[in-house]
Amino acid sequence: MKGNLIIISAPSGTGKTTILKKIMPHLQGLTFSVSHTTRAPRSGEEQGKDYYFVSQDAFLALRDQGGFLEWAEVHGYYYGTSKKEVTDRLNQGIDVFLDIDIQGARQVRKAAPDAISIFICPPSWQEQEKRLTGRGTDSPETIALRLANAKAEMADVNTYDYVVINDDLDSAARMLEAIILAMRAKNRRNLNGEPLCLPTEYS
Amino acid sequence: MKGNLIIISAPSGTGKTTILKKIMPHLQGLTFSVSHTTRAPRSGEEQGKDYYFVSQDAFLALRDQGGFLEWAEVHGYYYGTSKKEVTDRLNQGIDVFLDIDIQGARQVRKAAPDAISIFICPPSWQEQEKRLTGRGTDSPETIALRLANAKAEMADVNTYDYVVINDDLDSAARMLEAIILAMRAKNRRNLNGEPLCLPTEYS
Repeated sequence: MKGNLIIISAPSGTGKTTILKKIMPHLQGLTFSVSHTTRAPRSGEEQGKDYYFVSQDAFLALRDQGGFLEWAEVHGYYYGTSKKEVTDRLNQGIDVFLDIDIQGARQVRKAAPDAISIFICPPSWQEQEKRLTGRGTDSPETIALRLANAKAEMADVNTYDYVVINDDLDSAARMLEAIILAMRAKNRRNLNGEPLCLPTEYS
Repeated sequence: MKGNLIIISAPSGTGKTTILKKIMPHLQGLTFSVSHTTRAPRSGEEQGKDYYFVSQDAFLALRDQGGFLEWAEVHGYYYGTSKKEVTDRLNQGIDVFLDIDIQGARQVRKAAPDAISIFICPPSWQEQEKRLTGRGTDSPETIALRLANAKAEMADVNTYDYVVINDDLDSAARMLEAIILAMRAKNRRNLNGEPLCLPTEYS
């Protein structure tokens, strides 16, 4: 059975990473896609685990061959999700999470219309601001910018298949896990795209 | 927010009732539709709770007005799901389960294309036969007939949105619950059909 491609997006500070950390141990056969990047590895980052670290020439060559499901340039560095990386896992029957923003999601939907997409919302802007401030890592200007970006991103929420509101970590995690499980009940197809659970399956 | 209409079908002996009993206590805002029938109440059955018990004239009049989402005649009695019964609950934001067979499901899909449908499969025919025999309530002829019917019903499995295989009660219940929760994350619309979780929701 082929794996499913799952796009997951959330405005900064929504708690996406916390939710994902909570559900990953309960779900078998689910991995994150490893992105390509042209930036240098940071301390502790491993080649092929955190990122595929490649030269700009290699990145652009792969991009020009249409080798990326989605790519973007951020602060002078390139980031992208390679088609091969994703396809290989899907063909092994593994579900693949793509943790990408709304621009990336638009590109992936075009290249892979079967992908399901999930948007995680903050419960309110006040709460979102409180969370961003509570981190204590960003200046008021950065927080204001992140909030403005988050509000702009929310305009795209209707293009996502599923919306999870993170008003409570446990409920949001339960909901995200439910979406993954339901997706598996929906897409019961073998590697040739034929539906499973047919009389022929039964002897 | 409007409720969701959920069709649930399973060949006889698949364990549908047991699964439903297991998940109902965990899910708020979910009820079974109460059917209309022309058969007489059995001992302990309550009007409006187990069925709406009506005369054949009343049933046929309602049917001829297009008042049923689906109806069928079984052993000389009529059974049907009234549109009003379902619509009233959906408009109160309550999700409604329709426990119906594949013929009923076909009728409902035509009348209510938004309905989601779930088919519960036995893990195998051998196991299905074992379960039907294990009940100790049916003759070998009845069991053979039920099995033949179940095999015929399986041909329709591809018209359902979701397929849950009851190879293990706990996993099947977890999967069914997941489908309901995911459906709620998918259809986040208000009573006017407008998507929820939009920037305007946030103050």
